[in-house]
Amino acid sequence: MDLTRIELSEKEMPTAWYNVLPDLPTPLPPELHPGTKEPSRLPPPLFPEAINDQEFSKEHYIDIPEEVQAIYKMWRPTPLYRAFRLEKALDTPAKIFYKYEGVSPAGSHKPNTAVAQAFYNKQQGTKRLTTETGAGQWGSALAMGCMMFGIECKVYMVKVSYYQKPYRRIMMETWGAKVVPSPSTDTEIGRRILKENPDSNGSLGIAISEAIEDAFNHGDTKYAIGSVANHVLLHQTIIGEESKKQMEKVGLYPDIIIGCIGGGSNFAGMFLPFIKDKIKGKKKDLRIICVEPQAAPSLTKGVYAWDYGDAAGMAPILKMYTLGHTFVPPPVHAGGLRYHGKAPILSHLYKAGLVEAKAVYQIPVFEAGVKFARSEGIIPAPESSHAIKVAIDEALACKEQGKSKTILIALSGHGHFDMGAYDEYLSGKLQDYEYPAEKVKEALAALPQVPEK
Amino acid sequence: MDLTRIELSEKEMPTAWYNVLPDLPTPLPPELHPGTKEPSRLPPPLFPEAINDQEFSKEHYIDIPEEVQAIYKMWRPTPLYRAFRLEKALDTPAKIFYKYEGVSPAGSHKPNTAVAQAFYNKQQGTKRLTTETGAGQWGSALAMGCMMFGIECKVYMVKVSYYQKPYRRIMMETWGAKVVPSPSTDTEIGRRILKENPDSNGSLGIAISEAIEDAFNHGDTKYAIGSVANHVLLHQTIIGEESKKQMEKVGLYPDIIIGCIGGGSNFAGMFLPFIKDKIKGKKKDLRIICVEPQAAPSLTKGVYAWDYGDAAGMAPILKMYTLGHTFVPPPVHAGGLRYHGKAPILSHLYKAGLVEAKAVYQIPVFEAGVKFARSEGIIPAPESSHAIKVAIDEALACKEQGKSKTILIALSGHGHFDMGAYDEYLSGKLQDYEYPAEKVKEALAALPQVPEK
Repeated sequence: MDLTRIELSEKEMPTAWYNVLPDLPTPLPPELHPGTKEPSRLPPPLFPEAINDQEFSKEHYIDIPEEVQAIYKMWRPTPLYRAFRLEKALDTPAKIFYKYEGVSPAGSHKPNTAVAQAFYNKQQGTKRLTTETGAGQWGSALAMGCMMFGIECKVYMVKVSYYQKPYRRIMMETWGAKVVPSPSTDTEIGRRILKENPDSNGSLGIAISEAIEDAFNHGDTKYAIGSVANHVLLHQTIIGEESKKQMEKVGLYPDIIIGCIGGGSNFAGMFLPFIKDKIKGKKKDLRIICVEPQAAPSLTKGVYAWDYGDAAGMAPILKMYTLGHTFVPPPVHAGGLRYHGKAPILSHLYKAGLVEAKAVYQIPVFEAGVKFARSEGIIPAPESSHAIKVAIDEALACKEQGKSKTILIALSGHGHFDMGAYDEYLSGKLQDYEYPAEKVKEALAALPQVPEK
Repeated sequence: MDLTRIELSEKEMPTAWYNVLPDLPTPLPPELHPGTKEPSRLPPPLFPEAINDQEFSKEHYIDIPEEVQAIYKMWRPTPLYRAFRLEKALDTPAKIFYKYEGVSPAGSHKPNTAVAQAFYNKQQGTKRLTTETGAGQWGSALAMGCMMFGIECKVYMVKVSYYQKPYRRIMMETWGAKVVPSPSTDTEIGRRILKENPDSNGSLGIAISEAIEDAFNHGDTKYAIGSVANHVLLHQTIIGEESKKQMEKVGLYPDIIIGCIGGGSNFAGMFLPFIKDKIKGKKKDLRIICVEPQAAPSLTKGVYAWDYGDAAGMAPILKMYTLGHTFVPPPVHAGGLRYHGKAPILSHLYKAGLVEAKAVYQIPVFEAGVKFARSEGIIPAPESSHAIKVAIDEALACKEQGKSKTILIALSGHGHFDMGAYDEYLSGKLQDYEYPAEKVKEALAALPQVPEK
């Protein structure tokens, strides 16, 4: 019997995160202070020192603290699967593998950084963490991480999701977090927005601003971010480090690695340990394909520019592919991919031609997700199904060309909290959204002016 | 660092199910034909021969077919955890372990038998399977099992759940099953009930009758059951077989094993491989505690009698602890425990004094579930939280007595589809239900008359 699940034992779990910064072909542009627009570290009242150090570290590997390892080991190493059943359904000579992060208690890759951030905050005496969340993947991961280390957690949840998708809100509360709909009356900016528009549905940008303001104004409180930042991508490299070991166990190296990108932390966590080999010329032909939604195609249709990480302009200014920080993507179901920009590291690698990008519509994405569920059994999150869609396309191309390529998918999470979206697709009610060119034009006109030096 | 997750490798997965029938201290009473009330095999048009043979087998072990093993290995062996964090939260000297079945794609132990039943049906040429489901745990597992072997699946889902808890219905449809609200217009009995009462909310009893009628009336169609029957308990023994190996790895044998019981298949699957040692006198002091809801306390308040497995009297008559087949339990959230009877094997062992039983209310059950989520991270199903409640009680008793007992919990599944119930508990709106003594009295008066021979 062929191995379906390629296991790593607890003892084989990597004990360090891989830091790509010193291996980049050219240096990563700095992060700029949102006020002075000068290079700066992360705003010190918001982040603990250890996180700030990691954000700009020159070390090749950073040890994972024992306390973090102990919690990782509740669900890590995560399984790498050979998708025999999907291969058969596609009748393809391709060898398809997927690394599944849905086994964490929060159901996605997000705890990889949530647990680490909660640990470093605990170490520095933080009593309380604030954050924002859209549909709730990140908020629930941080709620769990904070619970693990006895830190209070306050989550500003985009109001429309708070009321329309209550299950992740309840999950956060089950872990003890306090969750409020954003805009809220708990912050100055929230009150101002509610005064102007009492019916505001909120946005991720507003929620970030509220979480940052809250952290600034409360003693012993800091802020945690779930994607985009260098330290978040660093913590996610445990995914790729494990995958490399697992691929070695079956004696294969991927020809193509495919993942979905919102901010980009999950997929970067997967491909960074592999791209190292490509940068060093050892695996020149390795293809890395980033899949983004047509509703927020910042790599394929955005510009590489300086922009704010948040809508309100309170977060650092980053050099990244962006559609403009005031751009609000159409309400596709893959809430985790509805972000205006991409992580600076990912953007830098894309600019350098080391990774590719594809944008896909949500109806074929759900079609791919259902095909996957009906062969492999696992019901993927809509975000993850973006990667599956392109992996299926590549596997079918292999069939046409008679080539047996090795394809590795980053499967970021399960779809247990997205069954409503599956229902829409299965009942034929799911709609697609065109790329809103006019709105992007407007948003790009509002990019911050930063003199190039 | 102490091991949190006690792993078994794929290669160490047991390759046979344990059959307790030949090891029972006294023979299990036969199953009676619902019409003739004479001992009989399972109704042959409903089940494939291999299942019928397993139901009454005298073999000590039955090999798990390779095709079933291959699918099991997508998520098995399941993890056994040492609950260090819960122990610390309780400040108890007890060593608490839990075997977690929530890692299956359907989120519970149910696929252990669903996959096996789908395989044996495929082997005998079955093209289509029917079944009933309440909240949907069993229906979703069978939908997945049928998908794996290319069998059509039709699920009669209790109407009130179909409309109030749509997510598991969508899960079944995602795997390709056809789901209808029961009572339906697809069967004679459904049409009759709808004519009498167009607003009928349905019941598990009606849904079973519809599924059986459907299977009787369609060629190439058979019926599958998710608990109670001997062959179902047999397939679930993979849980206990794995747990034994895992406990051996840490050099411990449980003093107390605790699980929740609806029909009893999950918990019997856990404890049968251990009770063997107790029956043979090797582990005389082993305590096995079955936990049932106060809303359906058939072991603690029912009678040991002949009764139908279903409400309509179409299923075999079984000797079991029962509250009467016409009894409809109050609507507690642990839908999987709302059954009038208990598996004949479990009932037989309880009658023989080899297992104990406790009945608990749902508010303290949710309190225990939240305590577990806030220490271990995993959010348990309300059913599984029944076991956690009693395990916590036993761990606190250990603390009082200064004893370091080893407690093993059967954690049957996750609570991702039960967040509404958690919300009720967390917001203080959850109600408890008293044992409905009058209704049980009525139902017991309707037991079938079977002359004892």
